[in-house]
Amino acid sequence: MKPVKVGLLGLGTVGTGVVRILEGHQDDLQSQVGSPIVIEKVLVQNKEKARAVQIDPEKLTDDPWDIIHNPEIDVVVEVMGGLEHTKEYILEALSRGKHIVTANKDLIALYGPEILAKARENRCDVLYEASVAGGIPILRTLVEGFSSDRITKIMGIVNGTTNYILTKMSQEGASYEEVLKEAQQLGYAEADPTSDVEGLDAARKMTILATLGFRTNVALKDVDVKGITAVTKEDIQYAKRLGYEIKLLGIAERQDDQFCVSVQPTMVSRTHPIAAVNGVFNAVYVHGEAVGETMFYGAGAGEMPTATSVVADIVAVVKNLRLGVNGQQGITAYKELKPKADEQIASKYFLLLHVQDRAGVLAQITQVFAEYEVSLESVVQQPNPHNPEAEIIIITHDANKAAMTKVVEAFKSLEVIRQVKSVYRVEG
Amino acid sequence: MKPVKVGLLGLGTVGTGVVRILEGHQDDLQSQVGSPIVIEKVLVQNKEKARAVQIDPEKLTDDPWDIIHNPEIDVVVEVMGGLEHTKEYILEALSRGKHIVTANKDLIALYGPEILAKARENRCDVLYEASVAGGIPILRTLVEGFSSDRITKIMGIVNGTTNYILTKMSQEGASYEEVLKEAQQLGYAEADPTSDVEGLDAARKMTILATLGFRTNVALKDVDVKGITAVTKEDIQYAKRLGYEIKLLGIAERQDDQFCVSVQPTMVSRTHPIAAVNGVFNAVYVHGEAVGETMFYGAGAGEMPTATSVVADIVAVVKNLRLGVNGQQGITAYKELKPKADEQIASKYFLLLHVQDRAGVLAQITQVFAEYEVSLESVVQQPNPHNPEAEIIIITHDANKAAMTKVVEAFKSLEVIRQVKSVYRVEG
Repeated sequence: MKPVKVGLLGLGTVGTGVVRILEGHQDDLQSQVGSPIVIEKVLVQNKEKARAVQIDPEKLTDDPWDIIHNPEIDVVVEVMGGLEHTKEYILEALSRGKHIVTANKDLIALYGPEILAKARENRCDVLYEASVAGGIPILRTLVEGFSSDRITKIMGIVNGTTNYILTKMSQEGASYEEVLKEAQQLGYAEADPTSDVEGLDAARKMTILATLGFRTNVALKDVDVKGITAVTKEDIQYAKRLGYEIKLLGIAERQDDQFCVSVQPTMVSRTHPIAAVNGVFNAVYVHGEAVGETMFYGAGAGEMPTATSVVADIVAVVKNLRLGVNGQQGITAYKELKPKADEQIASKYFLLLHVQDRAGVLAQITQVFAEYEVSLESVVQQPNPHNPEAEIIIITHDANKAAMTKVVEAFKSLEVIRQVKSVYRVEG
Repeated sequence: MKPVKVGLLGLGTVGTGVVRILEGHQDDLQSQVGSPIVIEKVLVQNKEKARAVQIDPEKLTDDPWDIIHNPEIDVVVEVMGGLEHTKEYILEALSRGKHIVTANKDLIALYGPEILAKARENRCDVLYEASVAGGIPILRTLVEGFSSDRITKIMGIVNGTTNYILTKMSQEGASYEEVLKEAQQLGYAEADPTSDVEGLDAARKMTILATLGFRTNVALKDVDVKGITAVTKEDIQYAKRLGYEIKLLGIAERQDDQFCVSVQPTMVSRTHPIAAVNGVFNAVYVHGEAVGETMFYGAGAGEMPTATSVVADIVAVVKNLRLGVNGQQGITAYKELKPKADEQIASKYFLLLHVQDRAGVLAQITQVFAEYEVSLESVVQQPNPHNPEAEIIIITHDANKAAMTKVVEAFKSLEVIRQVKSVYRVEG
């Protein structure tokens, strides 16, 4: 079979890894797909810049249309990032019958349905394994490995930066600000860390996981997002004392024809396997009605892990080319599920309150919980060594989110409560 | 599209789960594959026996040829187990153009290449995801998820019975015999536990994992197997004190054009994620040159987890039917790798020796290690509270297996050594 020609949009970290694998593993790849896979053109911003991999200068271009409009190119591999322009390139490439492999979570989370519709129309493949949890092949696991099951819950540590920060805070007792600065120096966090630490990156990935896992289009706006900037070292110490770790968890749940998706710092019981996922590693826990509990663990980012997933997608496209079945893999989101209202979302909660140290306080507080029908699993009151106040630590039974919002709201106007110090969802 | 008809060979635990999923998830499956999937015939030993699932008695047969020779049947699902007869049925079904889904690890480990060749000849699919690690979709992960990578190491806890036994021994300080008896009462171990406790079941699964991971035909005879019957509670206590757990690990390693595969009780550092896999759960750790460390965790057996994998394979066959591409997925074992000799297999070892408590003993022992060029990471000598002997605990640096065999042999004729109490491979 004649060589399959790839146009690469972007030669940053992941693009460099893709070049390394395509060149280094050419024999292996050819044995699997029956034809050479060659890089025909590479889009770069600066053609003169020194590169970590050797590429024929003739193949470099700074004009995306050199790739999009190039009739020689079969597969466009998008590892440049970006949103509006990138979408334009990809839609145009699809209209010209080119297959797409992308690592761009923002693009898929926001424009997935539109891009996939365009792909079907043109009988093209669009694959995006690398967009979530870098080296972990979780998307094909959800679509193919669990095709027979009904997935009820997906929990993910899908952002390495925040997991690194929380792990360090837990292991070293350091503050958020200290660890963030260190992570920035090490290159684990960006100069502007907003997208990571505010949970936005994780939210985009959870949108993709929930869409594939629940077989329905989940929109980014349906994801309730809270980042880690307010997590204190004291919270982490409390969590540890109670047998928990604080993790930034994406949680997607499905019940009948409804779903909910959120991202928030969560207290995870140390008995749950996801609590032990540390540092920049990612993990996705999947619960299915039939399969029960499973978990998938690996590198969430980095040049070579992410490139592994990109090239695995290229291999899948080329296998389809050989069989002549591109763009015919069926619709993955064929269900019409609806987002749950807050009244329907149940979980356990942890609360840390600073209260006046006098008689009757606990009665007033438990009265509020009773009013909103939130029942409690445990309540511990203890003097606060630093203040003339007491601390109350509460863990609830499953409570609905709307009721909890009202409880916290009511606490703010309760005179005996000085401060609602922390509220965390509890898992495991 | 017209209904796809399935013939089910066997209606035991897994067969029952397959019926449950095919019936319970029919709408979902049809949305994915575009046609109903119906059970046409079911092979049972006794047609009169009461069943956990309702099946039209007309569909039951006690004659396998009713299914194999049935021109209506598109897919034969083999969940009856067995070897020679089962192979005969499957080869005959393939020669009649029927696709095969099987959960039979023994069959694939022993006759995989022959069956797959017959399948290619007849343009048929043979899928066997359920044969290894029940509910974990590890085979498609190796073949598709990591198609782009070179896998260098696979470590698996792939036998739930032995992991249950070792976990209980570790957590409760109980003896092998006590826990085995309990496991048999609970149905976690069979009346004749040989295949599990001697490591044979794990060896068959490792044969399949190594074949797919290393893209070469690994034969069952190439797997070096040792079971858990000699593991004592004292060994486990020593391991724990040093920061290790003892697990029955399948270990497959590849270097250049050579591989080695073994199954043995192994001391695994508690810092390794596989050390925390407890009870009947399974996990497969995969290291790839590019992707680095990954791990896949879930139920290794049981009605519904295993049936999830069987039905996912049925879905894959039916998708191929719709596209007309069955039996064209390419050869997965396209490499010619060779098994390593013992001289080429390196790992760390733990040794526990009972020795005479007198001067010069350690010198004689370390002299033997030096003679065979095995260097030591740590040596601890301590009095044995129960005997007029001393105990010596040694952890080696990476040593080759042939040298270690010679060391242990030499120790047997060394007068100062009363007994080589335990020898374990060390990982992590």
